[in-house]
Amino acid sequence: MQFHLDGFQTGDPAIHEPADTLANSDRLPETLDVLIVGCGPAGLNLATQLSAFPDIKTRIVEQKAGPIRLGQADGIACRSMEMFNAFGFVDKVLKEACWINETVFWKPDEANRRSIMRHGRVQDTEDGLSEFPHTVLNQARVHDFYLETMRNSPSRLEPNYSRRVVDVQIDTDKADAVTLGSDDYPVTVTLERTDEAHQGETETVRARYVVGCDGARSQVRQSLGRSLVGDSANQAWGVMDVLAVTDFPDIRMKATIHSANHGNILVIPREGGYLTRLYIELDKLDEDERVASRHITADQLVAAAQRILHPYQLDVKEIAWWSVYEIGQRLCDKFDDVPLEDVGQRVPHVFIAGDACHTHSPKAGQGMNVSMRDTFNLGWKLAAVLRGQAAPRLLDTYTTERQTVARELIDFDRKFARMFSAPPKGAPEGSCEDPGDGVDPREFQEYFIQQGRFTAGTAIQYYPSLVCAEPTHQALASGFAIGTRFHSAPVVRLSDAKPMHLGHVAEADGRWRLYAFAGAGDPTAPKSGLSGLCRFLDESPDSPVRKYTRSEADIDAVFDLRAICQQGFRELDLDAFPSILWPRKGKYGLHDYEKVFCPDLKNGQDIFELRGIDRERGCLVVVRPDQHVAHVLPLDAHDELAAFFARFMLDAD
Amino acid sequence: MQFHLDGFQTGDPAIHEPADTLANSDRLPETLDVLIVGCGPAGLNLATQLSAFPDIKTRIVEQKAGPIRLGQADGIACRSMEMFNAFGFVDKVLKEACWINETVFWKPDEANRRSIMRHGRVQDTEDGLSEFPHTVLNQARVHDFYLETMRNSPSRLEPNYSRRVVDVQIDTDKADAVTLGSDDYPVTVTLERTDEAHQGETETVRARYVVGCDGARSQVRQSLGRSLVGDSANQAWGVMDVLAVTDFPDIRMKATIHSANHGNILVIPREGGYLTRLYIELDKLDEDERVASRHITADQLVAAAQRILHPYQLDVKEIAWWSVYEIGQRLCDKFDDVPLEDVGQRVPHVFIAGDACHTHSPKAGQGMNVSMRDTFNLGWKLAAVLRGQAAPRLLDTYTTERQTVARELIDFDRKFARMFSAPPKGAPEGSCEDPGDGVDPREFQEYFIQQGRFTAGTAIQYYPSLVCAEPTHQALASGFAIGTRFHSAPVVRLSDAKPMHLGHVAEADGRWRLYAFAGAGDPTAPKSGLSGLCRFLDESPDSPVRKYTRSEADIDAVFDLRAICQQGFRELDLDAFPSILWPRKGKYGLHDYEKVFCPDLKNGQDIFELRGIDRERGCLVVVRPDQHVAHVLPLDAHDELAAFFARFMLDAD
Ligand SMILES: Cc1cc2nc3c(=O)[nH]c(=O)nc-3n(C[C@H](O)[C@H](O)[C@H](O)COP(=O)(O)OP(=O)(O)OC[C@H]3O[C@@H](n4cnc5c(N)ncnc54)[C@H](O)[C@@H]3O)c2cc1C
Ligand SMILES: Cc1cc2nc3c(=O)[nH]c(=O)nc-3n(C[C@H](O)[C@H](O)[C@H](O)COP(=O)(O)OP(=O)(O)OC[C@H]3O[C@@H](n4cnc5c(N)ncnc54)[C@H](O)[C@@H]3O)c2cc1C
Repeated sequence: MQFHLDGFQTGDPAIHEPADTLANSDRLPETLDVLIVGCGPAGLNLATQLSAFPDIKTRIVEQKAGPIRLGQADGIACRSMEMFNAFGFVDKVLKEACWINETVFWKPDEANRRSIMRHGRVQDTEDGLSEFPHTVLNQARVHDFYLETMRNSPSRLEPNYSRRVVDVQIDTDKADAVTLGSDDYPVTVTLERTDEAHQGETETVRARYVVGCDGARSQVRQSLGRSLVGDSANQAWGVMDVLAVTDFPDIRMKATIHSANHGNILVIPREGGYLTRLYIELDKLDEDERVASRHITADQLVAAAQRILHPYQLDVKEIAWWSVYEIGQRLCDKFDDVPLEDVGQRVPHVFIAGDACHTHSPKAGQGMNVSMRDTFNLGWKLAAVLRGQAAPRLLDTYTTERQTVARELIDFDRKFARMFSAPPKGAPEGSCEDPGDGVDPREFQEYFIQQGRFTAGTAIQYYPSLVCAEPTHQALASGFAIGTRFHSAPVVRLSDAKPMHLGHVAEADGRWRLYAFAGAGDPTAPKSGLSGLCRFLDESPDSPVRKYTRSEADIDAVFDLRAICQQGFRELDLDAFPSILWPRKGKYGLHDYEKVFCPDLKNGQDIFELRGIDRERGCLVVVRPDQHVAHVLPLDAHDELAAFFARFMLDAD
Repeated sequence: MQFHLDGFQTGDPAIHEPADTLANSDRLPETLDVLIVGCGPAGLNLATQLSAFPDIKTRIVEQKAGPIRLGQADGIACRSMEMFNAFGFVDKVLKEACWINETVFWKPDEANRRSIMRHGRVQDTEDGLSEFPHTVLNQARVHDFYLETMRNSPSRLEPNYSRRVVDVQIDTDKADAVTLGSDDYPVTVTLERTDEAHQGETETVRARYVVGCDGARSQVRQSLGRSLVGDSANQAWGVMDVLAVTDFPDIRMKATIHSANHGNILVIPREGGYLTRLYIELDKLDEDERVASRHITADQLVAAAQRILHPYQLDVKEIAWWSVYEIGQRLCDKFDDVPLEDVGQRVPHVFIAGDACHTHSPKAGQGMNVSMRDTFNLGWKLAAVLRGQAAPRLLDTYTTERQTVARELIDFDRKFARMFSAPPKGAPEGSCEDPGDGVDPREFQEYFIQQGRFTAGTAIQYYPSLVCAEPTHQALASGFAIGTRFHSAPVVRLSDAKPMHLGHVAEADGRWRLYAFAGAGDPTAPKSGLSGLCRFLDESPDSPVRKYTRSEADIDAVFDLRAICQQGFRELDLDAFPSILWPRKGKYGLHDYEKVFCPDLKNGQDIFELRGIDRERGCLVVVRPDQHVAHVLPLDAHDELAAFFARFMLDAD
């Protein structure tokens, strides 16, 4: 956490100095750079990301009167925790959330199939998968953390509530690239005010870009003429957050319970030590049937849970929230307004994200997580194009990257959900009964383990594209697979010997990270690969740092170069390094001393070992603003590095 | 972090439900249970502690118009971090503060004594000393965290600013024990309002107890007729928080620099990555001389620092705060109003804490830390006596415990300061020059290392007293020395397999912790020592839990029993344990599942090994509300346990 660079400030450094133009007025401006529709996780993530850029005029609207306080999703995958870290609030989640450490599996007792027995348990998250745990927390609290971060941002962004988007029109004639300077606002959005004071009033806003984060029944998606395709019918789940007294021993573990004849439940322990979420699987609905027609009551859900848990008791004292949540696995074929045949001809101006373009069974806990990551992918791209830093075709990669991820997830979800719903295989031991064609509980558990990385969100890998290189030099850093998220590892900061995580230097600030891992020998020697790279970046006219950073900006305003050496921190002195590794910044030209790192040798956690870095040659790992690895290069591949960025970056001055 | 016990609550769980009677009014009530004088670290710590008990009517007054924003102390010892954890805000400090990881030592270069050279470096905090690092942060931010915690407490306590205490009178006739129910308010305090709107107005408040946390020139201390004794003259230090450009390579380490002829400085790296504190040693003042008379300017301090740092450059761009801080090592002989000869006859009603009763050289970074820990010692005692849970003589232990600690610290400080100030010993290598009688830099460094535990605050050990047993059974847990703070270690919680720190279950809530370490064999067997202890605590009429807990209160309202077993968490089931280890609590009688722990075997961190617990017999470690170990007992020493608490606890019903 850096602050005081441009002069000492009193008070909480997480509350940024307000910019000149603040966002927190109840009136919507007539023109906007970005209008975000919907205050779910997707919309709030995007709004928070953009609120860090006060030069971009952003607003987020929501049809409800205020923030949600209860219910909806609760699972937070490791990968989302990593992202929360970049937004600066992971510590709050770590403290308040329940950590999911083990998952247990229950099935009918073979000796007495009316009873259930624990038949397996696995550690929930594989060791070393992420530096953060898998957690669960009321979705409303996740929203709160985003809202607080927005509120404390330089633009002081607050949602405009009680506004329903009813129409979105794109003027395709004007739909060339639009950047902050232009006069074009090609998207016109019509909104209805939904609060009593303004009932019936309509507003019209013209925006450069609109992002529909308006959930499964997205109006923005419908305005684009797109639809979700997939399951013909919805699956209904009864979901309850309860305070209950029970003798079920695994009530504080994530537990899947298959009963012989009464269905299945999923137990999710919740924050605070007492709350439990129960998911009770209900019947599949008929096509076009809404579950409301079945008039399911909370009492019925409790009764179903009691039957499934037999012989354990469940005495529900309070139902904090309950719902019958109906969802099918569905997917939209494209996440923006440009028809497939026009890609490359026209720049997209309207995007959809989150449940608006893909829906998931709650079992795999993906809905909220994938939605937030959609807009983490989109946010920096929008900012870069709006600010004229990147070519508009960068925006096409949003749909290609995220639609593929969503499809892979839906395939996984479908298989997972099918397994979860199938009647358990297996007959009383020693009997000759036909085991049926259900799911072998062991198979279910195996699949669960294999898919842990998928569920954690760490297996997501973008394919080669404009912003993701071919893995030509992957062997130089086998643990940083191109396309996957940068997998952090422990290091020690050279200047102050602080043990920390290398990946935690990456904030959600739209900047690229260049991690230069030094090769063998003295990293400060003028002939070292690291010194050569620093010279190139600092001095060459072809240097991306020089080309794409405005001359009046700090040298790390666009590319944040960090070096990692192989020596212990006591063996090196920072002042021996090239000045770009302790650059002068800010209005006073103060040195930034936080650019060089060493392995955490004392704790036997050598990042070169852990991430398979070529010790002889070292390498450069290029990481995108959304934390995904874009490239791995030899330290001396200066031309290749320049060529990679030349594909989509625009000269600064 | 537990919440939702008495029903689901929306929003931030750190913001407690307000109690019926709130504290946040600008008027001072006529009568109070506790009046705290002074919003420094000592006062704020006490106010925060007491704000957790809305049944105790507490107010804190301060002569200044509002919270400080700048300057004063900045060092936070590991032990204070542990205490912050109990108050629930250590994560904020960890995130915002600068971590001190290494200390480096500079001395005159032997080849060229006009120059300085690094001659040594040590890891700042010994491995395993605490689970928290040594940090530095603007004292104002520490105040902010206390203020926020008070504000979010059930009593919504806010300081009453712009009030100067001018007189404190004790009616010794009424000075028997006073508890919440009584009509006696033996202390009368006169306050002057210092803000313009109320200038000249006087208020009178009657209080049961008054705590003077009003700093080195304490009016409360003077009202008691007590004085600080020690150094006859003050030592002056120039202190500056600067944003500067320098090529001094260790500017982000804690660095002590002895120059040959220009004096000494201490460099403290600060939060945010750019700020630096410099302490420049000035001349010793004459007796009764105030440093103001020397008219020292900031420019002079900068010039002195530049001379000492030669040949390194120091270009100061901004001085965020500077001061000439003058202090002598002084101590008050008693920290309350009762003369030594009356102890045991009369109950103390006025206390002094922090700088009001002891002052320290800033070099050892003790002032703020010791002050906070003074009132952490006092807070729970005051609460217990006011609530009628403990005998009034408990209050006598405040002065005996804390005065001793302060004396030991002053002795240490004095030696440390002397070493720091002495001219460095040592002549150019190979010369025959007399090395003089200065301090050998090597000796200084050795002493520094040895005293690390003292500085970290973890070496503090209270002597046997009413609330600290003799170490009869110490051998059962060699790592939990009676009188020292409970040294936390990693464990895994049985119910949900969460890896965590055992000591972190201890919140600043005035409760005692009983950590029962199971002996060899099955801990759930009816004959096990653990089962026997649980039966005694749950059922015996002699059980402290039964005797001192009100019948309508939760079973852990006074004593928080936790069990730690030797087996891995997959080998045990919580429901096999006695019900007092998964007790039913709150209005619904929900089970608390967070009482039983296992060693963190996977990570090779067995708490039984780490803390020298007798594996055969196990033991019970009794820990006070201020986290200090009060007793170590065999699991079956039920009578001894009962006898210990009978010394000072009062029957509940
Ligand atoms: C009632 C409900 C219960 C759920 N229960 C679970 C669960 O138990 N487990 C689980 O894993 N997931 C659950 N989910 C799904 C999970 O919450 C979503 O996957 C996740 O919130 C997706 O995030 P999102 O931002 O894409 O969309 P959403 O969170 O759906 O947010 C969309 C937002 O847009 C607003 N909006 C919609 N249309 C407009 C418009 N025209 N104009 C303005 N604003 C508009 C909506 O009010 C909403 O606030 C539930 C969702 C809902 C709605
Ligand atoms: C100006 C200054 C500079 C310091 N600089 C350093 C430093 O550089 N390094 C270091 O380690 N330590 C420094 N200290 C010391 C360090 O801040 C203290 O050791 C620490 O704050 C002690 O805490 P305390 O709560 O006991 O007292 P204090 O922090 O002194 O708090 C006492 C409070 O009581 C108030 N008060 C006093 N009298 C009355 C009254 N009659 N009525 C109402 N309110 C009253 C004061 O305004 C003050 O807010 C400095 C202290 C001061 C005052």
